Amino acid sequence: MSGSSLFAKAESTKDVEDGRALTPKFDADGLVTCVATDAASGDVLMVAHMNAEALARTIETGEAWYYSRSRGALWRKGESSGHTQRVVEMRVDCDQDAVWIRVEQAGPGACHTGRRSCFYRAVPVGRGGAVTLEFRDAERAFDPAAVYGADKTKP
Amino acid sequence: MSGSSLFAKAESTKDVEDGRALTPKFDADGLVTCVATDAASGDVLMVAHMNAEALARTIETGEAWYYSRSRGALWRKGESSGHTQRVVEMRVDCDQDAVWIRVEQAGPGACHTGRRSCFYRAVPVGRGGAVTLEFRDAERAFDPAAVYGADKTKP
Repeated sequence: MSGSSLFAKAESTKDVEDGRALTPKFDADGLVTCVATDAASGDVLMVAHMNAEALARTIETGEAWYYSRSRGALWRKGESSGHTQRVVEMRVDCDQDAVWIRVEQAGPGACHTGRRSCFYRAVPVGRGGAVTLEFRDAERAFDPAAVYGADKTKP
Repeated sequence: MSGSSLFAKAESTKDVEDGRALTPKFDADGLVTCVATDAASGDVLMVAHMNAEALARTIETGEAWYYSRSRGALWRKGESSGHTQRVVEMRVDCDQDAVWIRVEQAGPGACHTGRRSCFYRAVPVGRGGAVTLEFRDAERAFDPAAVYGADKTKP
């Protein structure tokens, strides 16, 4: 399955922005950005990428599939950890180069470091001077070594 | 101001994922992804990019700055429309190639098409067959021609 055959080609900016056809604008690497938020809390869980096949499979199955840039491979979220994501709603943005999925996150967390969300550190803003990150909601929800094994590479 | 001088270099994956230093992982184009959500509703308003200078200015001022790929220019959100974004909280993700900002959106909307959010169309999932987008929360909150002028190009 190539995935890309699922998607129409955009004819005009008006079609992209105001049309009913899904015409994803893949970047030079063939990817769109995907933001996954927790359907219950609204928190951003992760930002990842989808190629045409990952996007097509997500739409077909209602489960989140991504494309791992570091591994150069299609990746069903949770295939190693069991921490799958069921898509409650998918949306596409105005210029169709990003999608937003609201998901039910299975298991304790989405992040490969063991946290519920990948965004477990705050960047203080508007204070001036050096920037020191502040941990927030950073308790580990699971032990990544136990879930992925010691040789885990980041998805 | 180059911006990049503000940021430390990462020494190791452990430093990137578990450290207190902001060591943004800019892509080949010098950009990180930024997700802006509405601090009140939790909705994703937009996905955009920041170069080192945009990130530095956002941190310094507490107002959202981006880098427009289409215009090749630094861009203070709202500089044309007045629809600025005050950053309530910024977070960075595990591998520091994405930031999430929770913002107070000034004015009626964040999207250049006149909607409150750029994500005004849903993609049905898990149904099979052809994909037809469904408009959601797609009422125009403002008239983009009146706000930006007829020659508006997408930021």
